[in-house]
Amino acid sequence: MNRLERQITFIKEIDQLKQISRQTYLADGSRKENDAEHSWHLAIMAVLMGEYANQSIDVLRVVSMVLLHDIVEIDAGDTYAYDKEGNATKRDREVAAAKRLFPILPEDQAAYFYELWEEFEAAETPEAKFAHALDNIQPMLLNDASGGKSWREHDVKLSSVMKRQKMTAEGSQPIWEYAKKEILEKNIKKGNIRKA
Amino acid sequence: MNRLERQITFIKEIDQLKQISRQTYLADGSRKENDAEHSWHLAIMAVLMGEYANQSIDVLRVVSMVLLHDIVEIDAGDTYAYDKEGNATKRDREVAAAKRLFPILPEDQAAYFYELWEEFEAAETPEAKFAHALDNIQPMLLNDASGGKSWREHDVKLSSVMKRQKMTAEGSQPIWEYAKKEILEKNIKKGNIRKA
Repeated sequence: MNRLERQITFIKEIDQLKQISRQTYLADGSRKENDAEHSWHLAIMAVLMGEYANQSIDVLRVVSMVLLHDIVEIDAGDTYAYDKEGNATKRDREVAAAKRLFPILPEDQAAYFYELWEEFEAAETPEAKFAHALDNIQPMLLNDASGGKSWREHDVKLSSVMKRQKMTAEGSQPIWEYAKKEILEKNIKKGNIRKA
Repeated sequence: MNRLERQITFIKEIDQLKQISRQTYLADGSRKENDAEHSWHLAIMAVLMGEYANQSIDVLRVVSMVLLHDIVEIDAGDTYAYDKEGNATKRDREVAAAKRLFPILPEDQAAYFYELWEEFEAAETPEAKFAHALDNIQPMLLNDASGGKSWREHDVKLSSVMKRQKMTAEGSQPIWEYAKKEILEKNIKKGNIRKA
């Protein structure tokens, strides 16, 4: 296959991301969202909200990172943030997926996508930290909009949310302040998140 | 509402894009895709395929453009490329939608999104031309993968495809050459596209 054919094969392969269901419901609660929809949502958030990153960021790098961050789930499946068993094997399953999927691309782009995915996973650069802040706040916005549907279904505790949300503050203090004040407090009062 | 609240209101509002169904089927033919999935697909194509643009492009501008190009369909609905009646009223319906949706954002970002959307619609800049090439080729890739399902359902003629695909060549000659050789010829032979 030539370069263009490899890129097109990859583009067709990742169509499957549209069939990987997440635990989060759409804002109107009608159904769960999938990884492609979630990635689109994060990408447009990255375009609009870069001003709130704690450190100066390269917006195109954040956008590229969030567009591809869940592609490994085509093979590895979505692991719910609060699923302990699933999270124990997540890394191995996702590395195997990255090693199958990214090399469909021409070598330079395969290496670039692998690098961006590992950068996201390590959550150390300003871009990766901000990408995680978006990846954390987006399901909170949807959960809040749908009346806490997914939190209630999984009987989610505040302590679990707080543990996961540490990364949000590292990526964006203003977004984290908003989340605490406008989303968490309200949903604890409503009983959608268990105060424990 | 302060700046952040307006941005978050917009982000929740555009969640509805996930429910705007298109006429194109997913690659495996299992269901039709929606606008959010389509926009994600175009954005990742923009990241990977910029090298094929006829003119030098700003990749972040193309990515931003394709991420937002269908947002107006939240109010205006998806108009199938080969639907004559729908296309006669499309512009008015979409302008009204843009005027309702983008001003949810802070003024500067509302103006920027309106500008990007109008740039896409006018299809005159290198970025807009390339965005249209992607917007045209992506449903062809899916149609081809699903055995021409949507073309056959709408009894699509080659002359209609060629008319629409003029923009593809203007944005990217190599992508257009690929489409002609690898997709159109094959699907005419198979009877998925009517040769007329």
